[in-house]
This record gives sequence, structure tokens and C-alpha cells, in this order.
Amino acid sequence: FLIEMTHILTDYILKENDRASKVLDFHHPHQLREMMDHCLDIDENPRDLEQILSDCKETLKYCVKTGHPRFFNQLSTGLDIIGVTGEWLTAVSNTNMFTYEVAPVFTLMEEVILRRMRDLIGWQDGDGIMAPGGAISNFYGVLLARQKYLPQARLNGMFGCGEPVIFTSKQSHYSIKRAAILLGIGANNVIYVDCDHRGKMMVKDLEEKIASSKRNGKLPILVNCMAGTTVLGVYDPLEEIADVCKRNSIWLHVDGAWGGSVLLSRDHRHLLNGVERADSMTWNPHKMMGVPLQCSVILTKHKKLLAEANQSNADYLFQKDKNYDVTYDTGDKTIQCGRHNDIFKLWLMWRAKGDQGFEEQISKNFELAQYTLEKVQNRDGFHVILDKLEAPNVCFWYLPLKWRQQSPSDINAKELNKIAPQIKAQMMESGTMLVQYQPLGDLPNFFRVAISNPVITTRDIDFMIDEIDCIGRDL
Amino acid sequence: FLIEMTHILTDYILKENDRASKVLDFHHPHQLREMMDHCLDIDENPRDLEQILSDCKETLKYCVKTGHPRFFNQLSTGLDIIGVTGEWLTAVSNTNMFTYEVAPVFTLMEEVILRRMRDLIGWQDGDGIMAPGGAISNFYGVLLARQKYLPQARLNGMFGCGEPVIFTSKQSHYSIKRAAILLGIGANNVIYVDCDHRGKMMVKDLEEKIASSKRNGKLPILVNCMAGTTVLGVYDPLEEIADVCKRNSIWLHVDGAWGGSVLLSRDHRHLLNGVERADSMTWNPHKMMGVPLQCSVILTKHKKLLAEANQSNADYLFQKDKNYDVTYDTGDKTIQCGRHNDIFKLWLMWRAKGDQGFEEQISKNFELAQYTLEKVQNRDGFHVILDKLEAPNVCFWYLPLKWRQQSPSDINAKELNKIAPQIKAQMMESGTMLVQYQPLGDLPNFFRVAISNPVITTRDIDFMIDEIDCIGRDL
Repeated sequence: FLIEMTHILTDYILKENDRASKVLDFHHPHQLREMMDHCLDIDENPRDLEQILSDCKETLKYCVKTGHPRFFNQLSTGLDIIGVTGEWLTAVSNTNMFTYEVAPVFTLMEEVILRRMRDLIGWQDGDGIMAPGGAISNFYGVLLARQKYLPQARLNGMFGCGEPVIFTSKQSHYSIKRAAILLGIGANNVIYVDCDHRGKMMVKDLEEKIASSKRNGKLPILVNCMAGTTVLGVYDPLEEIADVCKRNSIWLHVDGAWGGSVLLSRDHRHLLNGVERADSMTWNPHKMMGVPLQCSVILTKHKKLLAEANQSNADYLFQKDKNYDVTYDTGDKTIQCGRHNDIFKLWLMWRAKGDQGFEEQISKNFELAQYTLEKVQNRDGFHVILDKLEAPNVCFWYLPLKWRQQSPSDINAKELNKIAPQIKAQMMESGTMLVQYQPLGDLPNFFRVAISNPVITTRDIDFMIDEIDCIGRDL
Repeated sequence: FLIEMTHILTDYILKENDRASKVLDFHHPHQLREMMDHCLDIDENPRDLEQILSDCKETLKYCVKTGHPRFFNQLSTGLDIIGVTGEWLTAVSNTNMFTYEVAPVFTLMEEVILRRMRDLIGWQDGDGIMAPGGAISNFYGVLLARQKYLPQARLNGMFGCGEPVIFTSKQSHYSIKRAAILLGIGANNVIYVDCDHRGKMMVKDLEEKIASSKRNGKLPILVNCMAGTTVLGVYDPLEEIADVCKRNSIWLHVDGAWGGSVLLSRDHRHLLNGVERADSMTWNPHKMMGVPLQCSVILTKHKKLLAEANQSNADYLFQKDKNYDVTYDTGDKTIQCGRHNDIFKLWLMWRAKGDQGFEEQISKNFELAQYTLEKVQNRDGFHVILDKLEAPNVCFWYLPLKWRQQSPSDINAKELNKIAPQIKAQMMESGTMLVQYQPLGDLPNFFRVAISNPVITTRDIDFMIDEIDCIGRDL
């Protein structure tokens, strides 16, 4: 059974890397349900191994091939074979990360990797933990700031304390707001700072808003700085923001979920100059480093704060009278109790590639993005949003033939808004490729190509541009 | 490489099922670091595939074999081969659960399974989502109650609103308190209800504490009811607690992380009589159902509340102008953004076993626990904490020969407290088995054997009892 399963999975991997295969075989939810009707439902009865193998084949048939060289849809793409086998071993060892007792090797690996990541940031000391995704890592960032400035909230709740406020740019990820909601700070206490035309936080506006919130009796506790925004992929001016935070004694969190990985690239790490001055940082190796989902980290410069924010000293799990150094029981620092092993695949990939391999991989993403940008700039009907890249995101409108004499800003926004969804709907029907679109502020829907899959070549980029043009020109 | 990796992993699985193999090869953190020194560190340089295979072998060598028939340490044990291959396919398909677009098949599977689970509870309608562990599922439970009673907290934070309080038994899991801390309610607003001698919540005390908190101007928003406590494995009196909640209009959350699975057992589901009256429920298939880590669910009777509590309408991800029914994009209901696929392994195992297979598996756990209880009751030196089981937890003190004339309550608690840790330290050194110990309230350290691994037989139980006796008799 295991052997046959391995064959099925290997076939899928081969097919995924075959450009002639579809990226997806799209069906609407109700259609897919009908098509899978014979194998979707569960009931009283057991199915034999043959049926299970056939269920697996059926499942893979309708999966979206996120590792396909023509899947450009998310910030996490690609399928690293070392990473996959890392997940396989993780599944077989099937343990919980909460104590050294049951995860001795993985605990040490987590220590090694988190220390390496802090080194790259430039922190001598500090702490960190793996989290189930970047949104939860950002949640930790806000929690740490709350713990520092309102430590009494742990015991007494947020009642009767001053109202904290947090600052983040209009183009930051929604998880900052969600963290404020969950942590009892409230969405209205998230103050959005204006961005310049490139999408970077305007430091002057930040300073004014901090001053104004202080005048209103609020307590500024955190500024979130984007290192690679989700859509445009730009970096907020970190050094200047760090100055503002220092002057005002505010926690500086860097959301590097997407763009934090440039710390591994000598060519690009300058984008994060000043990061050593931050208090905490989110970094998702499952994005630009191509580690299988999920693999996200929260790092902080402060050694004890994670434990202070979370500790509960559960007697049944974190006994002090164990026969080993219990500071290795990491579970008391987390918002989870049980915790999946997300470290092994990252550790294994890092062993296999070394810093060097990740550096090359990241450089290649940037080169391909630059290639894409230039292609798009020189092609009729394509209009880039930003003409200079900081991360491997290329964002552009596509204009059908009928509008070729106009620029996107002259076209009725409502009309332009419909183009990308129509093209994408056709992409999905034909299954040849997948590219994300979205609006941004006042800007109507545009495409975002994000490159994080090392198997993509210039041929795939050419194909993608031709395909959009071919689907869209006569709309 | 993939083939060789499969061989390494298969070998591990075989060894894990071999009773002659050690459960663990224990070393202290600093020792293990030295022993793995040649393969633990990462640096500039890539390692070749041969080295990677050797790294994997080394890793497995020092892993704790959580699927070994003599690993009794956690509530999650065992290694189901269908579940493992489910994880392998998950790794290969490597997608994110946030949208139907990239996870069409898995989205439908999540829908099928969550509906099945709600059916078992007895809810006609409702909602649910997979969470990264039971602690986060419980966090959702408290969040839902906060959303219902203090919906303004989403926008305004917890300032200026009445002080909510939540109630839970003294033997409940620490994640309830942690959720209150995180959500801005505060640890002091978690009111602990007394338990009777069996560890069940005393309903009279609950009523008094609710009344008293109301007199103090507080707003009771949630009662947490344990369905299988972590240590003793007992069920709070659900029907009576539901009555209290109804009379007082309080949200009823059932923490069935460990014991919720008895809903699949016709013999044991009466323990959860009245669960259909609850508002939300945590249920971890990675515990009693033996699904690989992590697999945890939060379910609620209320259809819209999960979305109301979490929605953020992120434009870049949850576009309304997609070409399919976007209610299938589940991401906007979660506290995460990206979300690991935890459903496929559960779905695959459920297909393979049917309700029937899980029922048998759960019954077997209970039978073995009953066998353990009787053995322990009839053996010199062993003293059970509870003489009637509700879940497959057996808790007992072991007394060395020198104390055999006394009962545990006559022995100096400080002295008795040292026995279990000493025995466990020796177990770990010898690596023959692993059993959890902990104190509980005033009770000094005792052992807890929790049975959730289907490969355990009565021989393993006999072995475990003999081994404890052998290690501990002369202490």
C-alpha cells in the first residue's frame, strides 16, 4: 500500500512539472460535488485499500497544482522535493512540539534555526517560535506589544486601562487588524497611515497620527512596518520608522511574511536595513523560500516576553520536576497547546541548500520578476502599476484592444474592474495557468504575478503574457 | 531519492511496531546536541542528497516513537498508516485552505466532514472550521461567546464595556484561561468552579458563582464544560450545566478535545447527552480517533457567528467578483490567513474506517483502559485515583515497598510527589516505555495512562505495570 501510494504521489509530482499538463481542472462547487459523489461521502461503512487508492487518485485529479510552473496565484508556490520528504518524515514521526520529552530532536532543530534567523536579523539575543501561519505570527507581534505596555491586561483584561492604539500602513496585511480585534484592542484602534504612490508608509503621516492619538489620550503601543506588502511587494522605510518608534517608545513590528527572506540575499537585504532595531518580526519560509505549507515564524529581540505573555504553568504538561532542563519545553511560550512540527522540513531544506542555495533561489525570483516587468512594460495593452520592483511581485492592468488608445486612468473604473476577473475566469476554465487579481484602494482590479517557484523559467513568463493577451484582447 | 526515503520511513514504522525496540533513546539537551553535532548545524554550504538521507536517519534514531505500543505518554498516540499517507498526499498537493480556488477538493471534504460531525452532535445547522490544535479551538469558543455578547468589542475593543466573566471547572484545560487572557477578558475573569471527588464540575457551585458575579456587576458570557478532562478523563454533567446556561442566557462551550470522539460510539455517547444544547464544541480527531497531528475542529450551532467574529473582507484574497460561489472561500471565518490542510488525512481515514471502524477503535481503547484499571486495582503498590472510568485514562499512584502498609493519603505528600518523577526518569533512561505523571490540585504526582493507540494489547499493559513495579519497588 505504501509503495503504491508513493507511485501515485510521484506520478503527480512528475505531471505537475510537465508544462503540457493543466494547472487545474476547474469545476464549480456543485459540479465538483457531483463528479466526486461516488467517493466524497463518508458513512457507516469502511472502504478497502483499493478504494482508498482510487480516492487518492481522484483527489489529486481535481487538485490545483500549486507547484506547476504556470501557477502564479499565491505568494507560496512550488514544490521542493526535500521539503516534501521533510513533511513525510514529520508525518511518520508524528509528534507534538510542546515538550522536549516527546520532540527532543525537533526542539533542538527549532533552536538552531530560530537562532540562525535572529543572527540574520542582527539580534544577539531574543526568542521566537513557529506559528501556524503569518497571520498568527503577526498576532504574536501585537500580543507582545500589549504584554509590554499593558502587562496588567493578562490578569485584569482590557477594562479600565488606557486605550492602546496601533499603527500600520493602508497597504498592510489584514491580519494586523484582526489581531487587534482578537486581542481586545478593537479595529477602531488600528490607525491606518497613508502610503505614497509606490505604496510605502509615509513617515510624516505616521508621526502626525501618533501625535494626534496622544493628544486624544490614547496609548500608542505598536507600529507595524511592512517588509514586502502582499500586493505590490514594497518595503516601508524601516530606518525612519525605527527612529519614530524610538522617539515615541513604541514597539516596532516588522511584517516580513513575504519579504523577510531577502535577509538571505546579499543583493537585496538592504531593503531591510535597520531591521535589527525592530522588536519583533514575522517571517514565512513557506513563501519566498519555498518551504511546504505551513512554515511561519515570529521572532523577537526580547528574551522573556513570549513566555510572560503566554505562560500558564500547566501541571500536567510542564512539570518542573522533570529529569532534564525544562527550559527546553517550548510549549509554555505559545498560544497553542499541541503544536505541529513545522521545523523539520525547513531545517532539512536549509541543510540541503545552505544559505547559499536559498540566496540563489531568491535572486532567481527577483531576476524573473525583473524579466516579467520589462516584458510587460514593452507590450501593448499591459500597464504596470509600479515600474520599479522591490520584491518579486509584478502588478499590471491588461487592456483589451478596444481601449488601447487610452491609459488605465482614463478608462471608467467600473469597466476596467471587470476585465481581470473575466480573463481569470477563462484561465480557470481552460486550466492553463492561474494568476491572482485584486483591486487596491482606488485602483480597479489588476493582475499580480508573484514569483516564488524555482522551476519557473522565462518561457513560462512569456507564455503567461501571451495567454493573458490572447484571452483578453477581444473582450 | 524519494524511493530511498520511503524505505527509511518504512523501516522506522516497522521498528516502531516492534516491541523489542526502544520507545526512545533519551539524552539530555546538551548531550543530544553533541551527539548530533555533525549534522545539526546549518551554514553557508549545501549538503548532498546522501548527507540528507543520513541526516534523516539520524533524526529518526533520536525521535520518540509516539506510535510505539509502549508509548502511553500523551492523549495522542499511535500511527495510522492511512492517516500517514493522507499527510503525504497533503504535502505533495501543498495547498492553502483559504480559498476554494486553490483547494477545491479539500474545501468540499471539509464541508462533508464538518457536517458529519455536526450531525453526530445533533445540530441541524451551524458552522465550523479546522483549527491548529485544541487550544485554538477553545480560543474560538470563547471568541464566539465574546462576539455574541459583546459584538462592539470587534470595533471598539474591550474598553468601557461591562466586564465579561467565564466559568470553567478547576480541572479544565489551561487553554480556556489562555483564551481569556488573549481575548482581553483577563485571567481574573475566569471563574473556577469546584469539582466533586471524581473531578466533575459541581453545578451548585457554578450556579452560586454565576449569581455572585452578576451581583458584582459582571456579565457571565460562557460556561466551559469538559467532555473528558485532560488528566482524569471525566465528563462534566452536561444536561444540568445546559439548564443553568439556558436559565442565565450563557454560551455553553463543550471542550471535547479528548472525549468528544465518543459521539462515534453507541456504548459511550451517553456521556455527551445534551451536547446538542451546547453552542460550540471543540473536538480533536488527533486524539482518541488516532488521526496524525494536527487535526482539531471547532464546531458551532450558530451559522453566521464565526464569520462575524473574524471577517475582514481582504480584497486581495476574498474577491466577491470571482467566477464561483464565494461562500466556499472559508478563509474569512478563521483567525488565520493561510491555513494548513488538516482535513484530507481525517477524511481519508474516515473513508477507510467508516463510522464503524472508529467505533470499534474507540471501544477497544475503553476496554483496554478497563483492563488496566482492574489490573492496577488488584496489584500491590498501585492505588487508583478513580475507580470508575469514563474515558480511557487510568490514573494511579505507585508506592514502593517501604510504604506498602500505608495508603497514599497517609504518606507525606512531598515524599510521594517524588516517586513518579523518579520512576519516569528511569523509564526514559532505559527507553522501554513512557508514561505521563502529574499532580492535580492537592494530590501529589501520580501516573496517567491514556490509551488511544489501536496497536496496544493487554500484553503491553501487563508489561507497563510490571515495569513500573520493577523500577519503583525499592525506591
